[in-house]
Amino acid sequence: MVDDRSAGYRELLSELYPHTGRAWVVGVTGNPGSGKSTLCDRLIQHLRARGERVAVVAVDPTSPFSGGAILGDRIRMQRHFDDPEVFIRSVATRGAVGGLSRSAADLARVLDAWGAATVLLETVGVGQDELDVTRAAHTTLVVMAPGLGDDVQAIKAGILECADVFAVNKADREGADVTVRDLELMLALGAEVLSGAEKKTRRHSAASRAVPGASTAFTPAIVKTVATRDEGIAELVDKLDSHRRWLETTDAGRARRAERLHEQLVAFLRDVLAEQAVSALGPAIAEAAARIAAQEIDPYAACDELIARFRRE
Amino acid sequence: MVDDRSAGYRELLSELYPHTGRAWVVGVTGNPGSGKSTLCDRLIQHLRARGERVAVVAVDPTSPFSGGAILGDRIRMQRHFDDPEVFIRSVATRGAVGGLSRSAADLARVLDAWGAATVLLETVGVGQDELDVTRAAHTTLVVMAPGLGDDVQAIKAGILECADVFAVNKADREGADVTVRDLELMLALGAEVLSGAEKKTRRHSAASRAVPGASTAFTPAIVKTVATRDEGIAELVDKLDSHRRWLETTDAGRARRAERLHEQLVAFLRDVLAEQAVSALGPAIAEAAARIAAQEIDPYAACDELIARFRRE
Repeated sequence: MVDDRSAGYRELLSELYPHTGRAWVVGVTGNPGSGKSTLCDRLIQHLRARGERVAVVAVDPTSPFSGGAILGDRIRMQRHFDDPEVFIRSVATRGAVGGLSRSAADLARVLDAWGAATVLLETVGVGQDELDVTRAAHTTLVVMAPGLGDDVQAIKAGILECADVFAVNKADREGADVTVRDLELMLALGAEVLSGAEKKTRRHSAASRAVPGASTAFTPAIVKTVATRDEGIAELVDKLDSHRRWLETTDAGRARRAERLHEQLVAFLRDVLAEQAVSALGPAIAEAAARIAAQEIDPYAACDELIARFRRE
Repeated sequence: MVDDRSAGYRELLSELYPHTGRAWVVGVTGNPGSGKSTLCDRLIQHLRARGERVAVVAVDPTSPFSGGAILGDRIRMQRHFDDPEVFIRSVATRGAVGGLSRSAADLARVLDAWGAATVLLETVGVGQDELDVTRAAHTTLVVMAPGLGDDVQAIKAGILECADVFAVNKADREGADVTVRDLELMLALGAEVLSGAEKKTRRHSAASRAVPGASTAFTPAIVKTVATRDEGIAELVDKLDSHRRWLETTDAGRARRAERLHEQLVAFLRDVLAEQAVSALGPAIAEAAARIAAQEIDPYAACDELIARFRRE
C-alpha cells in the first residue's frame, strides 16, 4: 500500500503520475467535536448524487493512546462502504516528521489515478497536521462548531489564512451566529493585516484577497450547516465548487495552484533529503551527539561537519 | 537577537556553548484555556522563592489573525517584569518548519549561559509546536483543565507519551477528578501498549515505564492545581524536581538525556540541510515545479534530480 512506503512504491507512483491531475483535492480540517466526519459523510452523499466518484482519506496522527478511539469516527461514514464508487481509508501518520503531507499527497495522487473526481483529505483529532493536509489540497474547508470553548481562537494559527471555505456546523446550537460574526471579523482583520507589510510574505491567495479592486481574488465563504440534518450542505458544495472554478479559471487561481505545487515540492525535498542524510550518515550522527554531550564540539559545528560529509559522499 | 537569526548568531551561540549545560529546561504545554500562563507565573514565584534565576520563553506560532491576542497572555506574568533575576520573552515562530524547535533550543541555551537555573519553555495557543518544544526540554509538563471539551482526547497525539508531569489545573472546577482518572487510565493503557510490539520504536522514558521491575523508570506524576489561588504549586514543583533528579541520577534518566540530544541533533540537521538545499538550488526548484505542472516529470524523479544536484555542488 502507498502509505506503507514499502519497496516499489516510488515506482508505482511514478507510473501512475501520467494518469493524475484531474482530481479535485479538498482538505477538511477543524477541531474535534466540530462534526467533520458527519459533514464528510454528507459531502460524499451530495457528490455521489451528481454521479461523481469520491474518495475520503482520513489522516490520523496515530498514538498508542488515542489511535483506536479516534478511528472509531470512521463509523459515521460506514453507509458508503458498500458503494464501489466511494473509497474511504484512514492513513496513520506514525509520528514521522513531514511523513503526513507526503502520505496524504501520495494517496491523493493514487486516488486521482483511480478516477476519483473529488478526494476529501480529512484530518482526524487534534493535530500538528492540518497545515500539512492543507498543503496537499486544492481547496481547504475548515469546520467549526459553536460552543467548543475558544471557538475562533482555538483554530490553529496558520489555518485561518489557508481556509477557502468555512462551515459553521451544528448551526442549530446556541452561539452559531456569534461564531459566524467572529469569523467575519477575523477575516476582515486578516485582510487588513495582510494588506500591510506582511503581504509579500504571505501566500498568494491570502494576499490577493486584500488587494483592493482585485476582482479575481477569492473571498473565503462562510456557510452554516447542520450535517446531522443535511442542512446547508448543498450551499456548502456550491461554495466549494466556486473555489474550484476560481482556481481553474482565473489568473490568481492558477498562480495559487502553481505556488502550491512549488511548496509541495520543497516539502517533499526536505523529507527525502533528511531521510537520505540520516541513512547515509548512520552512526556518525550518534558519534557527533556523544561529542556534543561531552562538550567537545558545539551543535552548530557538529551539524556543519555532518552536512559536509553527506555532500561529499 | 537569537530568534532573529541575524548574521553572527551562530558564532554567538558557538561562543556561548561552553558556558551552557547547567540550566534545567522545562517545557510547559497544554490547550488554550488550561491556564498555562497563570501556572507559569506561579512556578516563577516558587522558583524565585528558593533564590533561583528563572527564564520563561513563550513560543508563539504567530499568525496575522491571532498573534496579538495571544501575546496578551503574557500580561499574567507581568508582576515579574521588574525582577532582574527573571527573564520573560515571546518567540514568534514565523511559520518556519522546524524553526521553532531551533529558536527555542537556541534561546534556552543563551538563557542557560546567562545563568538561569530553570528555563520554562511555554507553548502559546493551539499548536503544531508542542512536540518541538518537548524535544528541546528536559522535563515536560502538560497542563490540562476539566471541562475543556474533549479533555484527555483533546491532547495532541504524541504529547501524552512525552509528558513527565501532568498538572490538572482549575482543579476546583467540576470534573477535575474525572480528568485525573481519565489520565491515569490513559497512562495505564499507554504503558500496556508500549510494553508490546511498539516498545522498541518508542522513546526510552516512555518505554521504560512499562518494563516490569525497572525500578529506575519514571512514572509520570499527576498533580491537581488551582494556579489562581496558588494551590498545589509546591507539590507540582516537587514532582518536577523528582523528574530532574531521575534524569540526573539514574541510568535510565541519563540514557534519556543522551537520546534527547541525539533527537535534537537530527532535527537541527534536517533544518540546516533543507535551508542549505533550498538556498543552493535556488531557481532550479521553481523550474522543476514548472516541469511537474506540465507533466514532463513526476515529483519523485524531480526530487531525485534536485538532491543529486545539491550533493554535487
